[in-house]
Amino acid sequence: MRILVANVNTTRSMTDSIAAQARHVAAAGTEIIGLTPRFGADSCEGNFESYLAAIAVMDTVLSYEGPYDAVIQAGYGEHGREGLQELLDVPVVDITEAAASTAMFLGHKYSVVTTLDRTVPLIEDRLKLAGLDARCASVRASGLAVLELEEDPERAVEAIVEQALLAVRRDRAEVIVLGCGGMAGLDEQIRLRASVPVVDGVAAAVTIAESLVRMGLSTSKVRTYATPRPKTITGWPWPAVDTPAVS
Amino acid sequence: MRILVANVNTTRSMTDSIAAQARHVAAAGTEIIGLTPRFGADSCEGNFESYLAAIAVMDTVLSYEGPYDAVIQAGYGEHGREGLQELLDVPVVDITEAAASTAMFLGHKYSVVTTLDRTVPLIEDRLKLAGLDARCASVRASGLAVLELEEDPERAVEAIVEQALLAVRRDRAEVIVLGCGGMAGLDEQIRLRASVPVVDGVAAAVTIAESLVRMGLSTSKVRTYATPRPKTITGWPWPAVDTPAVS
Amino acid sequence: MRILVANVNTTRSMTDSIAAQARHVAAAGTEIIGLTPRFGADSCEGNFESYLAAIAVMDTVLSYEGPYDAVIQAGYGEHGREGLQELLDVPVVDITEAAASTAMFLGHKYSVVTTLDRTVPLIEDRLKLAGLDARCASVRASGLAVLELEEDPERAVEAIVEQALLAVRRDRAEVIVLGCGGMAGLDEQIRLRASVPVVDGVAAAVTIAESLVRMGLSTSKVRTYATPRPKTITGWPWPAVDTPAVS
Amino acid sequence: MRILVANVNTTRSMTDSIAAQARHVAAAGTEIIGLTPRFGADSCEGNFESYLAAIAVMDTVLSYEGPYDAVIQAGYGEHGREGLQELLDVPVVDITEAAASTAMFLGHKYSVVTTLDRTVPLIEDRLKLAGLDARCASVRASGLAVLELEEDPERAVEAIVEQALLAVRRDRAEVIVLGCGGMAGLDEQIRLRASVPVVDGVAAAVTIAESLVRMGLSTSKVRTYATPRPKTITGWPWPAVDTPAVS
Amino acid sequence: MRILVANVNTTRSMTDSIAAQARHVAAAGTEIIGLTPRFGADSCEGNFESYLAAIAVMDTVLSYEGPYDAVIQAGYGEHGREGLQELLDVPVVDITEAAASTAMFLGHKYSVVTTLDRTVPLIEDRLKLAGLDARCASVRASGLAVLELEEDPERAVEAIVEQALLAVRRDRAEVIVLGCGGMAGLDEQIRLRASVPVVDGVAAAVTIAESLVRMGLSTSKVRTYATPRPKTITGWPWPAVDTPAVS
Amino acid sequence: MRILVANVNTTRSMTDSIAAQARHVAAAGTEIIGLTPRFGADSCEGNFESYLAAIAVMDTVLSYEGPYDAVIQAGYGEHGREGLQELLDVPVVDITEAAASTAMFLGHKYSVVTTLDRTVPLIEDRLKLAGLDARCASVRASGLAVLELEEDPERAVEAIVEQALLAVRRDRAEVIVLGCGGMAGLDEQIRLRASVPVVDGVAAAVTIAESLVRMGLSTSKVRTYATPRPKTITGWPWPAVDTPAVS
Repeated sequence: MRILVANVNTTRSMTDSIAAQARHVAAAGTEIIGLTPRFGADSCEGNFESYLAAIAVMDTVLSYEGPYDAVIQAGYGEHGREGLQELLDVPVVDITEAAASTAMFLGHKYSVVTTLDRTVPLIEDRLKLAGLDARCASVRASGLAVLELEEDPERAVEAIVEQALLAVRRDRAEVIVLGCGGMAGLDEQIRLRASVPVVDGVAAAVTIAESLVRMGLSTSKVRTYATPRPKTITGWPWPAVDTPAVS
Repeated sequence: MRILVANVNTTRSMTDSIAAQARHVAAAGTEIIGLTPRFGADSCEGNFESYLAAIAVMDTVLSYEGPYDAVIQAGYGEHGREGLQELLDVPVVDITEAAASTAMFLGHKYSVVTTLDRTVPLIEDRLKLAGLDARCASVRASGLAVLELEEDPERAVEAIVEQALLAVRRDRAEVIVLGCGGMAGLDEQIRLRASVPVVDGVAAAVTIAESLVRMGLSTSKVRTYATPRPKTITGWPWPAVDTPAVS
Repeated sequence: MRILVANVNTTRSMTDSIAAQARHVAAAGTEIIGLTPRFGADSCEGNFESYLAAIAVMDTVLSYEGPYDAVIQAGYGEHGREGLQELLDVPVVDITEAAASTAMFLGHKYSVVTTLDRTVPLIEDRLKLAGLDARCASVRASGLAVLELEEDPERAVEAIVEQALLAVRRDRAEVIVLGCGGMAGLDEQIRLRASVPVVDGVAAAVTIAESLVRMGLSTSKVRTYATPRPKTITGWPWPAVDTPAVS
Repeated sequence: MRILVANVNTTRSMTDSIAAQARHVAAAGTEIIGLTPRFGADSCEGNFESYLAAIAVMDTVLSYEGPYDAVIQAGYGEHGREGLQELLDVPVVDITEAAASTAMFLGHKYSVVTTLDRTVPLIEDRLKLAGLDARCASVRASGLAVLELEEDPERAVEAIVEQALLAVRRDRAEVIVLGCGGMAGLDEQIRLRASVPVVDGVAAAVTIAESLVRMGLSTSKVRTYATPRPKTITGWPWPAVDTPAVS
Repeated sequence: MRILVANVNTTRSMTDSIAAQARHVAAAGTEIIGLTPRFGADSCEGNFESYLAAIAVMDTVLSYEGPYDAVIQAGYGEHGREGLQELLDVPVVDITEAAASTAMFLGHKYSVVTTLDRTVPLIEDRLKLAGLDARCASVRASGLAVLELEEDPERAVEAIVEQALLAVRRDRAEVIVLGCGGMAGLDEQIRLRASVPVVDGVAAAVTIAESLVRMGLSTSKVRTYATPRPKTITGWPWPAVDTPAVS
Repeated sequence: MRILVANVNTTRSMTDSIAAQARHVAAAGTEIIGLTPRFGADSCEGNFESYLAAIAVMDTVLSYEGPYDAVIQAGYGEHGREGLQELLDVPVVDITEAAASTAMFLGHKYSVVTTLDRTVPLIEDRLKLAGLDARCASVRASGLAVLELEEDPERAVEAIVEQALLAVRRDRAEVIVLGCGGMAGLDEQIRLRASVPVVDGVAAAVTIAESLVRMGLSTSKVRTYATPRPKTITGWPWPAVDTPAVS
C-alpha cells in the first residue's frame, strides 16, 4: 500500500520529519511518500497561506505520477481537504480530523495545543465543520511559530507541556492533540510529562488511511465530493490541476 | 467610495451582470468596479473550483491598482473570504453572509435556493461557520447549473420559484435568499411570484460594504484576520500574491 | 427617506443623544425622527421595564402621524421587536441585532459590553433568539446603570474599555459591541483605547434600515409577522394600539 | 395554599375553563383564583396581543389584593413570565414550560399541537429560550383559532388528534403537549384517541406551583429576576404597575 | 399513593436518609418505600458502579411485591432510568432530571454541586441526554466522596457552599442543585449560606412523581420505552429480572 | 496483538459471525477472540437488555484469563462502554462510535440503518453522547429484529438497501452505517446495491483498536475513566466483577 503524505508548506525538512513520523507508525507493507508543494509559503499560520496551500497540495498530488492508495493532508487546521476528496478516488485523510477522531476514543474531552494564537480560530473552525468539536475542551496556543518548533524542540516541548497541563486542569481535557504537523515526533515526550494520552495527527492519519484502504472504503461520490464537473479552466499554469477530470 | 466586486469565476458576462446588479443598488457616490479573476474555472460548482477561486480572487484584488474602500466576494458559498480579510485593511463582504444576515431582519426563518444539488452542502458549511445557520430553514437546489442561469433566465425563474414555494410551505421559510451570484437581477420576478421577500446577495453586500465604510469600520486585526506574517513564498507565478505583506 | 428611531425609556435627553448618533451616520437624504414613549420607565434595566417599553414603543410608533419608511427600536436587549414587525409594513430594525449582525462582518468573535450585571442574561436571550449568538464570545457588564452613562461619560468610557480589553484577551473577542442605547456616541473613544472595531447599535441600525428601504425589502408577512388578526381589544386607553388593524 | 391562575386574554369564559381545569388537578388544600386581565385582546394569536398580555397579566396580578402563594401564567407561548418573576417573591410558572418539562418525564420526544400556524414560531422561540427544545420533536398547528376551540370542542378534538398522530408517526414524538390554554380539559379525549400521554399545561403548572411552594422554593433574586430597581414610571394609568417596588 | 424510592448503592443508612427526605416533602396520603439494592457497591462514583446499580435497581424494583404508583431512582447522574421506564407501567422519575427540571423554574441558569471531580462528566452526560443542559451553568465537585457526606455533614456543607458561591459568582448560576442522593437534607443549610434557591433531587422527584400520578400520566409506550420484547434470558440468577415480560 | 470482541447478547452464532467479520479485516498478526456473555438476553433491542448486556460484557471481559491488547464492544447503540474504559488499561472501542467515526472520513453526512424502530432513539442517544451526531443525517429502522437478520439474510439486505436509498435521497446521507452487530458481513452486498460506501462497525472497530495499540495509546486515566475507587461490592455472584480493583 502506498500513501502520499502531503506537507502544506514548502519547507522540505518539515516534509521529511512528517514522513518520518508517518513511517514510524505505518504497517509493514505501507510505503510512505512525502510530498512538498511546488509553490506556497514556508509555513502556514493563517488563512492566506492556508488557501494557497490548499491548491498547492491539490497540484502536488495531481502531479504525482504512479499509483497510490490514499492521501494524507498533513497540515493542522488547513483548508483544502474537500477539494482533494472531489479530485481523487482514493481516501483522503486530514490530520486535524484524524487526531480529533482518535482522541475521542481515549477520553471524555480532548484539547488541541497548537502554535500561534492567531491559528486557534482556524482550528476551531475546521473542527466545527468536521462535526468533531462537541468534545473539544479547548484549542490552546503554545506561542511558538511553526518554524520555531524545528529550531528548538526542547523549548517547544516545554511550551506545549505547559499548555497541555492547563488544558487538563482548567479546561478539563483528558487527552491532548498536537495541533501542528511540525510537532510530529514530540508526542512521546509530552505524554511522559503531561501524564495523559497525546495524539499526533500524522500518526493517527496514517492508521486511518491504512484502515480505510484495508476495508475497501473510499470517499462517497454521490453528492458533495462527486468528481468535479467538466469545466473550462483558463489561466492556470500547471497542467495537473488544469485537467482534473482525467484523474 | 469605490467598491471592488470580485466575481469568482472567469466568465466575463457574469462579472458584468453582477456589477450591474451592484450598481443598481449602490448609493449615488459609490463606484462599482467588477473584477474577473485571471485564472480559474468558468463556473464554480464544487470545492475544487471554489478553492481555485479563493486564491484567484485574492490575486485579482491584490493586482488591482488604485485605491478602493471595500471588497465584495461575489460567489455564493465559496471559500476564501478569510484570506482576503487578512490581506486587506478595508472591509471584505461575502455575498453568502451578506444575504443571510439581511434575510434575518425580514422574517423568522429564511431558505436559500441555489443551483446544483452538489453545492448545497458547501453553502450549509459556509453558513454554519459564519454562525448564520440557526434561522436557516433549508438550502434547496433548483437543479440548474450556474451557466444555465444565464442561458435561459425564464427557466431559471421557474425552477427557483418552485423551490422557493416549497421552502415556504414545507421548510417554513419566510424569506428567500438567491444562492448564486449568477442569479443577480432575478430577485424582483421571484418576489412577485413567491410573495415573500427575496434577497440578492450582491445587492445586500453592496449596502453592507457601504455601511461599514460610512461607519469607519473595518476588519479587526487583533487575531484571526491579522495581516499575514512575513513569509518566504516560492514558486508562485503572480507577484501580487507573492508579496502580500506590502499590501 | 424618513426613519423613526424609538427610544425605549422616557428620558428625553437619551432620545436626543440617540437621534443625534443616528443623524451622524444617516445618509444625505435620510430624515431621523426621535420618538420618546409617552409612558414607561426612565431607564430599562430589567424585564419589567422592558415589557412595558415593548408596548410603549408600539404605542408611540402607531401614534406617529405622517409617513415613514422604517423604524428602529433603540433599546439594547429589549422586548417588543416582533410586535412592531407584525403591526407595520415597513422594515423594523432592533439595535441589538443590528450591532451583532454588523460585528460579525468585522471579526471572528464579538463581545457585548453593557450596563448592569442583571441585564446580561436578557441580552444573551435576545441574541440566542435572533440566532446571532454563535459567534458571541461574551456579554460583559460595565457595572454602570443606564442613567449613569449620561451623567459621567468619562467614567463610562473607562469602565467600558476595561471590560472590552478583558473581552479581547480572555473571551477572545475581536470586535466590541456597545450594549446600551445610552452608549451612543462613545464608540470612537473606545475604539481608540481598545484597538478593535467598536460597533454602536444605533448607527448600525440606521444603515441597515436605509439599506432595506433602498433594496425595497420589508418584513415577510407570510407567517410569524403577518398583520395581527382582527381582535376585540378592551380596556386599553390609547386608541393607536387599540386599532392596529388599520395601520 | 392559594394559586393565582392568570388568563392572558380578556375572554372570561376561557378564564373559567382554565380555572376549572386547574381546580380539577389541584390538591385538597389548594385554592385556585382565576384572573382575567382588565385590558387586552379577546385572544392571543401573535406577538402584538402577546406583548399586550404580558403587561396586562402583570397589572392583573399586582392588582390582586390579598395573599397568594404562586402565580401561573396560563397562555401558551406568550411573553411576560420573566417580568412577573422580577416583580414577585412567590413562584411563577408558565404553562408552556410546565407542559414541556412534564412531557420530558414521559417519553423520549414530545410534540406540541397548537392553534394557528402563525403561532408555531412563537412557541418554538419560548421553548428555545427556556432550554426545553432539545427533545421537542415538533410544534404543529391544528388550524383552529383560539376562540374556535371553545365554540366547537368536537371539531377541536378531531383536528388536534390528526396532528398528534402525525407528530407520533412522522416527527417521532412519544408524548403530546396541548399548546393552548383554551385546550384545557381536552386532554383525556385526545389521550384516548392518540394512545400516547397528553399533557395539559394548566394542570402541569398547578402541580409544579404546588410542589415549589411545598418545597419552600421560589425565584432566585440574585441576578436576572432581582426585584426591579426603583424607577420613575410616568404616563402609565394603572397604579399597580406604576409602583412595583412596593410589591 | 405509594412511591418506591430506590437507592442506587447498598448502604442502608443512605437509603434511610433518602427516604426520610422523601417523606419530609411527600403529600399527606403518600407512602414512601425506601429500597436498597441486593447487590452492588456501597457508593456509586463512576461508570462501573453506576452500571451495576442500573440493573440492581431494576432487580430491586421488580422484586418488590405489592402495588405501587411510581418509582424514583435516587442516584445523581446514574445509568438505568430508561430500563426502568421500559419495564414498568408506572411513572419513573430520576433525581438528576427532577432536580434540573425544578431548578429551571427558579432562575436563569443553575449549577450542580456534586461529590468527586470524576463524577462531573457523568452528570454532564446525563443532563445532555435529558436535554436539560442548555441552562446548566456548570457542574462542580465539592471534592468529598459519597460516604464522606454522611460521616461529616458539617464539612460537607462547608465544601458545598464554597462551590455554590463560585458557581453563582463565576459561572453565573442563580440556583444550586445538590448533585448527590447523599446530600438529601442539606438543602436548607446551604440555601441559608448561599442565598440562592437550593434544589434537592429527592424532594423534587417526589413532587414530580406525585404530580404525574395525580394527572394520570405515565411513560409513553409507543417506541423508546415500550415493554421489552419477549426474550430468552439465560444465566441471570434473579428471577425478577429474568421474566420482565410479566411485569 | 490479541483483541477481545465481546458480543452483547448470548447468541453464540452471532458471536461467531461477529468474530468472523473481525478476522476478515484484522491485520496479519492480530488474533481475534470472540466472547459471549455468560448471562443476558439472546438479543438486545432495548434499554433493559442493553443495561444487562453492559455488565455482562464487563463480567465476560474481566473473566477472560490471559493477556489481551484491546477490547471491542460489538453491540450497536448499547450501554456500557464507559464502564469497560474504567475497568481496563487497554483501549476499548465501541462499534457504534467506530462506525460513525469512520463514516465521517467518507462523506459529508452519514445515516445509520438499524433493526427495529424502537432502537432508533437509543442509537441517537449514543451518537449524541459520543459527540458524533453533528453529521448524522438520520437513523433509520429496517423493521427487522436482530435475530431475523441471521435467519433471512436476503430479506435483511433487501430491507436495509431500501432504507439506505431513502437515507441518501431524502436525508441527504452520503455514507451508510450498518447499525447492528448482527449485520456484520452484509456490507459488501449493500454497498453494491446502494452505490455509496457502507461501514460495518465491527470491521471499523478492529482497525481502530489495532491502530490505538500500534500508536501506544489507551484510555486516559485522569478523570472520567480513572480506575474505579476501591468499593465494598456485595451480593454480586461473579468474582470477576466483584474485584475489579485488581484488574
